[in-house]
Amino acid sequence: MNISINDTAAWLNSHDNYLVLTHIRPDGDTLGCGGALVRGLRELGKTAYLLCNIEVTERYAPFVDDLWAPDDYESEYVIAVDTATPDLLPKNAAEYLDKIELCIDHHGTNTGYARQVCCLPDYASCGEIIYEILEQMFVSAGKTMSAPVADRLYVAVSTDTGCFAYGNTTANTHSVAARIIELGADSKRLNKMLFRTKRRARILIEGMVNSGIEYFFNNKVAFVTITREMMDTSGATEDDIDDIANIAISVEGVVIGITIREMSSPTDCKISVRTTADYDASQLCTRFGGGGHKAAAGATIAKTVDEVKSALLSILEEYDFQ
Amino acid sequence: MNISINDTAAWLNSHDNYLVLTHIRPDGDTLGCGGALVRGLRELGKTAYLLCNIEVTERYAPFVDDLWAPDDYESEYVIAVDTATPDLLPKNAAEYLDKIELCIDHHGTNTGYARQVCCLPDYASCGEIIYEILEQMFVSAGKTMSAPVADRLYVAVSTDTGCFAYGNTTANTHSVAARIIELGADSKRLNKMLFRTKRRARILIEGMVNSGIEYFFNNKVAFVTITREMMDTSGATEDDIDDIANIAISVEGVVIGITIREMSSPTDCKISVRTTADYDASQLCTRFGGGGHKAAAGATIAKTVDEVKSALLSILEEYDFQ
Repeated sequence: MNISINDTAAWLNSHDNYLVLTHIRPDGDTLGCGGALVRGLRELGKTAYLLCNIEVTERYAPFVDDLWAPDDYESEYVIAVDTATPDLLPKNAAEYLDKIELCIDHHGTNTGYARQVCCLPDYASCGEIIYEILEQMFVSAGKTMSAPVADRLYVAVSTDTGCFAYGNTTANTHSVAARIIELGADSKRLNKMLFRTKRRARILIEGMVNSGIEYFFNNKVAFVTITREMMDTSGATEDDIDDIANIAISVEGVVIGITIREMSSPTDCKISVRTTADYDASQLCTRFGGGGHKAAAGATIAKTVDEVKSALLSILEEYDFQ
Repeated sequence: MNISINDTAAWLNSHDNYLVLTHIRPDGDTLGCGGALVRGLRELGKTAYLLCNIEVTERYAPFVDDLWAPDDYESEYVIAVDTATPDLLPKNAAEYLDKIELCIDHHGTNTGYARQVCCLPDYASCGEIIYEILEQMFVSAGKTMSAPVADRLYVAVSTDTGCFAYGNTTANTHSVAARIIELGADSKRLNKMLFRTKRRARILIEGMVNSGIEYFFNNKVAFVTITREMMDTSGATEDDIDDIANIAISVEGVVIGITIREMSSPTDCKISVRTTADYDASQLCTRFGGGGHKAAAGATIAKTVDEVKSALLSILEEYDFQ
């Protein structure tokens, strides 16, 4: 059942003992949302925890690692945030899969797997939805959300919009940013940390990536390859490469930017596709069993890097690049 | 005389025939402000032009190049935007220097050279001030500013805050961004153009830079070298490397980032120094006859790259890096 922000706030207000789930390969949006929701609910007198997400990275750990549910926590209601499909939930969420009461999300591809779904695909980040839900709850309680809640919302909103630079950013994104900064979000510190500091390993792998971009179809298509060797040589972590899929599409004139990542085995690759307005990234990724948004999508492919390149190039042959 | 936003709007409403001046080495803020102010004033029934700024770059020309004053334009009132001191005005503004009626600015260093000064140093960008002035004028005229005016305000606000990532960004910056996007600013297109597109040459030289950073003093100091050969090989222009001096200081843990640029001869180098709060870039550059600000300074040195490195390292030996 689809429910509105109002309904979601009312439902959260009238229940208690929540367990909040975040998605695998957790990013700033899912963790920022999870952290903000749990802390916000607690400030409103509720009991709430996050289900431990073992993949949490160093960058985002400070926003969630004091909120993990203890082993003996007995929740009444399970909530998933920023998670389009149940298979994006981590393994330790398996026991909750058939009893997810509420899903709060902004992915148009949300499968409606929860009993109640508050999904608003026009929102750039799930963080904006969590903000509006919490804001309503705080207003009706006559309270003001704390700066730590606002910090977590800022992490969610800013990371999912590339610090307000991605095409998904809306007037609402900026309105929410203005409001959470007023509420005490330390955007200066968070921006320096999230967007203006790079680890040496990131600098190194970015150098390798920039030096190795391959161009096809009259430079309309750019391929970036990230091999396991590049990861090992540079010492890059998942945090270091979490937005590297944007490099290929940032090259002037490129309309489809594809990043091929060699995963744990040589026949296990992940592709991240970014496109300009005239091309559909999701459609391309669907050909490989993946999906996503029109401008940003991904897929996992059981092939080697070279095989993936060939497969992509033969599909792209069908395209009409002007 | 210092005047408020209200007073500025009222004064602009009650006069006419404006000439607007922008500063030398014009950036997005001065040109976005100038373009928005001239177009906005025209939509409100006034006559207004920009004084031609010959240094305008390809990137910003589309926002101003239909607004230059014809040679025979006889203005009644001269307005300077985003310009802290008269010596930052271009040469062709010389005849107006002693009759600048109004200066709208956000620099704390504004010398008050105009008869009326609307200077608000708490604002991240001058664009936010121009927005508030124009918004008041449009409201009192019962009109709404057009999307092209909003576009120019977005250029001003977004470029002066590094797309909302710099430490100067405030809640007000985001509120203004929200409002001008509602008014039709095409932030998606502008972000792509201003912040998310890089020439291939830029990608290549960035790759070389990232791969060649040298670290000293327990990784507190980072050196980037840009040789003439790197420029030739990559095909990079001055535009491509205009912010490359920020790379070294963006590395985690680096407190002094130095970029050494080999100029037209092998014994002609330029250094750009960037520092975190505890170190004085200007002081270091003064040792080589240069200067600048505490966090960003430069110098020109008649030595080879290797000699410059040695000279810098021997000075830095005196520093106490914790």
